[in-house]
Amino acid sequence: MQHIKNKNGDWAYVIGPYKQPVAKVDSGETFVVETMDAFENRIDSVDVDIAKIIQMPFVNPLTGPIHVNGAEKGDTLCVTIHSIKCTRDYGVSALIPEFGGLCSTVFTRTLNPPLPARVMIHPINDGEVIFSEELNIPAIPYEPFYGTIGTAPELEAISSLSPGFHGGNMDAADVCPGNKIFLPVKIPGAGLFIGDGHAAQGDAEVCGVATEIPTQGVLTVDVIKNSNINSPRIESSDYIMTVGSAKPMEDAARIAFYELVMWLESEYGIEKLMAYQLCSQVARVRLANMVDILYSVVAKFPKTYLPRLV
Amino acid sequence: MQHIKNKNGDWAYVIGPYKQPVAKVDSGETFVVETMDAFENRIDSVDVDIAKIIQMPFVNPLTGPIHVNGAEKGDTLCVTIHSIKCTRDYGVSALIPEFGGLCSTVFTRTLNPPLPARVMIHPINDGEVIFSEELNIPAIPYEPFYGTIGTAPELEAISSLSPGFHGGNMDAADVCPGNKIFLPVKIPGAGLFIGDGHAAQGDAEVCGVATEIPTQGVLTVDVIKNSNINSPRIESSDYIMTVGSAKPMEDAARIAFYELVMWLESEYGIEKLMAYQLCSQVARVRLANMVDILYSVVAKFPKTYLPRLV
Amino acid sequence: MQHIKNKNGDWAYVIGPYKQPVAKVDSGETFVVETMDAFENRIDSVDVDIAKIIQMPFVNPLTGPIHVNGAEKGDTLCVTIHSIKCTRDYGVSALIPEFGGLCSTVFTRTLNPPLPARVMIHPINDGEVIFSEELNIPAIPYEPFYGTIGTAPELEAISSLSPGFHGGNMDAADVCPGNKIFLPVKIPGAGLFIGDGHAAQGDAEVCGVATEIPTQGVLTVDVIKNSNINSPRIESSDYIMTVGSAKPMEDAARIAFYELVMWLESEYGIEKLMAYQLCSQVARVRLANMVDILYSVVAKFPKTYLPRLV
Amino acid sequence: MQHIKNKNGDWAYVIGPYKQPVAKVDSGETFVVETMDAFENRIDSVDVDIAKIIQMPFVNPLTGPIHVNGAEKGDTLCVTIHSIKCTRDYGVSALIPEFGGLCSTVFTRTLNPPLPARVMIHPINDGEVIFSEELNIPAIPYEPFYGTIGTAPELEAISSLSPGFHGGNMDAADVCPGNKIFLPVKIPGAGLFIGDGHAAQGDAEVCGVATEIPTQGVLTVDVIKNSNINSPRIESSDYIMTVGSAKPMEDAARIAFYELVMWLESEYGIEKLMAYQLCSQVARVRLANMVDILYSVVAKFPKTYLPRLV
Repeated sequence: MQHIKNKNGDWAYVIGPYKQPVAKVDSGETFVVETMDAFENRIDSVDVDIAKIIQMPFVNPLTGPIHVNGAEKGDTLCVTIHSIKCTRDYGVSALIPEFGGLCSTVFTRTLNPPLPARVMIHPINDGEVIFSEELNIPAIPYEPFYGTIGTAPELEAISSLSPGFHGGNMDAADVCPGNKIFLPVKIPGAGLFIGDGHAAQGDAEVCGVATEIPTQGVLTVDVIKNSNINSPRIESSDYIMTVGSAKPMEDAARIAFYELVMWLESEYGIEKLMAYQLCSQVARVRLANMVDILYSVVAKFPKTYLPRLV
Repeated sequence: MQHIKNKNGDWAYVIGPYKQPVAKVDSGETFVVETMDAFENRIDSVDVDIAKIIQMPFVNPLTGPIHVNGAEKGDTLCVTIHSIKCTRDYGVSALIPEFGGLCSTVFTRTLNPPLPARVMIHPINDGEVIFSEELNIPAIPYEPFYGTIGTAPELEAISSLSPGFHGGNMDAADVCPGNKIFLPVKIPGAGLFIGDGHAAQGDAEVCGVATEIPTQGVLTVDVIKNSNINSPRIESSDYIMTVGSAKPMEDAARIAFYELVMWLESEYGIEKLMAYQLCSQVARVRLANMVDILYSVVAKFPKTYLPRLV
Repeated sequence: MQHIKNKNGDWAYVIGPYKQPVAKVDSGETFVVETMDAFENRIDSVDVDIAKIIQMPFVNPLTGPIHVNGAEKGDTLCVTIHSIKCTRDYGVSALIPEFGGLCSTVFTRTLNPPLPARVMIHPINDGEVIFSEELNIPAIPYEPFYGTIGTAPELEAISSLSPGFHGGNMDAADVCPGNKIFLPVKIPGAGLFIGDGHAAQGDAEVCGVATEIPTQGVLTVDVIKNSNINSPRIESSDYIMTVGSAKPMEDAARIAFYELVMWLESEYGIEKLMAYQLCSQVARVRLANMVDILYSVVAKFPKTYLPRLV
Repeated sequence: MQHIKNKNGDWAYVIGPYKQPVAKVDSGETFVVETMDAFENRIDSVDVDIAKIIQMPFVNPLTGPIHVNGAEKGDTLCVTIHSIKCTRDYGVSALIPEFGGLCSTVFTRTLNPPLPARVMIHPINDGEVIFSEELNIPAIPYEPFYGTIGTAPELEAISSLSPGFHGGNMDAADVCPGNKIFLPVKIPGAGLFIGDGHAAQGDAEVCGVATEIPTQGVLTVDVIKNSNINSPRIESSDYIMTVGSAKPMEDAARIAFYELVMWLESEYGIEKLMAYQLCSQVARVRLANMVDILYSVVAKFPKTYLPRLV
């Protein structure tokens, strides 16, 4: 198996077509990929000055681009995640002034004084994350996923902090082992970028930071020829899912549900208004993030209600 | 047990302080309440003209106000829901032009042609909802809840279609049997309104209509003296929850999480920025509705992570 | 001329159908109306404690309802404003914590520390407003308007702080002497409410408070029979205007422009898509407020481009 | 004077650091720049199929990047616009399905049927734009400006359809002859991009398209060393202005006003909360666009109220 990582310091901070591939893989190939944590593994103590570590726009370093042989504009890339291992015995979370769901930001600009910075170290072992030794609460299960996974747009180079139609920084916990992620291909080779491993994360990632970890994952990529999708899709054993990323948040939800309805029509033969009405009875939603450059909403349709096509 | 319903035709279409109570109950009292469906039980066939049935503002009829003896401004009303029975053998759902999550509305005004109207009848029996006889899919479990529950504001009379700080039309599936709903008291007697029974509903209620049913529920109300809350709270066996209702949707999420963080601090002793950072690791979110006059988001904190107070 | 004012202390804090008229006028009648300032004229020094003065929901007191004889549901009320006189020699502005366009609010909830409260007194005389004696800047012209004007909804009682389809707290400087304001009639007698006089205001009313004054205005009301409008309209010598009030702000803009386009089609014979394309070349917009319960946007079409109907 | 244009077909469709400069200019240099219209000058008749002409992402072609010698990260680039000449005797406007302020879009996704496409040709001569020969309305004055002007971000390549902190597709009519545009410098040479000439445009550019023209403009650029700005600023004879671009629209307004308040404090010595309160009395706002990838709002402070610094 290929073992893919970027050279030290040569991380990608944008998802775009301009960076040389760090590896080439075939459709159907299984490989190992290593990722840094969102802070470039630079936090090893609660005493670091987070303001010094975050030197915009050099945050959320990604591994990639990985060139997938044969992928062309108009195809879909299917990424199957087999496993995500944490390569360190702790995760990191933080409060970052002017970043987060419950504070003034560079977008939701206010004159209020900022919140303080704060760093926490969360020991990880035996499949458990210790949030705090001080707080008398049980360990959090280790449920890893990639906060960021995306394919290169044709012309744009999009900040690794932003999600979008290309995937990117969705912070959706459904991008996890066992699931398949479908991403649009816009350039030859697709240009796959991966990073921002999370050992645990609440819906919405409300303070802006999950339990951030460096990872080693095992993935398989498959090129689905001539299969155009508008926005990322995910499939688990229980759900088919679509991801919408936009602001305001209702637009993210609209995109996700629109794509879900269209998917139900095109692939499962449920007429779109019927699918719309059915989703209104059985769909589930994950609010993936309310903190990034765009918000991400995952619309989920339970497979149990997919028509049994005879 | 008192059996509370409004006189036929005397439904409440606003939640406010201006309507005479239809019943008085004591704190601690358990009673039965009957509700009409959101269309006043006027749909009995797929052939009805929904545009004629919906005569704004006379939609979503509520039962109430129920006067709770002893409740005063500054108290909290706790409503425990024991059961919700469907009093008909079918539910109704519909597509209503200019209403819904994936269409132009009177707020998100566009020049696009509207979607068509459509009515569906969903047979309900043996704890199951049949979405469609045509579509080869399994039955949906009967999981009833009240789409609308709220207490009167001091001066405002708020449309029964709108959620808000008073509760109202949140369309949150957590307002269900087994759970406790906490609502702010602003007037003497609280002025409790209930309605909009749903036999099943997807997160977001994306087309704007759930499986609408008339109901008979059994409730207990308790007045918690001198206990001010800003926005509705819910408690289940597994979660403490707060509801935010606002537009854009991120403001609904902000309100919900703000109230959750403040609750964790005031009642469970987790310092608020610590609670904020903890929610970012373990909170869950339900997108309750993306279709009403305001959107509703439920922020949920798993009780398992509440500190064990010794 | 009738001289209309509410009895001292009997102000209206909601716009709805539940309060007894304080006066009755005929269609075509010209009358004098007195209004309090938004703080009930209770601020007479920079040293007052604004937090004590603002006792929600008892803010922004309105004069009314004024019953307009003969007005019925389905009519339009035209209010012509002849003059607005300031009945005091100063205006008041303030910073109110958790209220304003550049701070955390009860809707855009954050954990940031609040801004401080602050009160300013602005002397008014000879048609000029002195913003500050300290700051070496010229006087601001006295350009008075009503921040709040609206007609009663059929069932709802809407906070005097909120704008909406009924008019209300739009904070649109176009509600000024010389202009005609068109409001929907939903109840017998229309139920006209007026208040929130401003001696000067910037677009957006960004800190949440204008130069607040008590006023005496001279108005004429006219009932236009069988003339349904969805949202307030305004006409000046130069523009026809529509007002949209909603959140997010783009929805306010959508409503305003939709109504403008429809008006251009129905009354001036410009096919609606042509009108849409024409507005894209010549329309003007006033951002009226970005601080109230809903934001208000005024879309303006220059009369010079109205087709000359022969 | 240098005469700058891109080679035919070598237009820029993103604003970023990856494209080779098409020209180099010195700080203080005055030069001529040519731009294509937003449709690459490919529309010469109302009968063209706009869907074929718009081949995303190859729309809104820009001239640039222009390398400004000596500009470095941390500087500000001041662009003075002397004149903008239309190089054709007509402008073009259009309705583009799924694009515009009053229709479903790829962001505000709905299931409604789309609006039709439509193209209009608007003759331009003698300083006048003829909107339509059919409609009996006067000519519109020729008031040209650049819809798009921006400097390269450090790592991102941003669609020429999007505005942002880098400037870009703001569609602000204040980017016009006589005014100075201030843009942040993030890379050596600044990387200036210009395009999207408009002969006329209404506030909000509501249908998504102005009177689109190819242009020849005369500009001067000046590098202001060590002068960091967060977002574009504009100065005219009457106003100092700041531009905010974001979604939802209130965030665009927040950014614009925040930057205006900070500018008033840092450069004119008005303490920021005083500036905030003053803006609430005298500021003006232009809603520049409600149709692009982000909305743009211009906050304007009248120079007449700038303190006279002795």
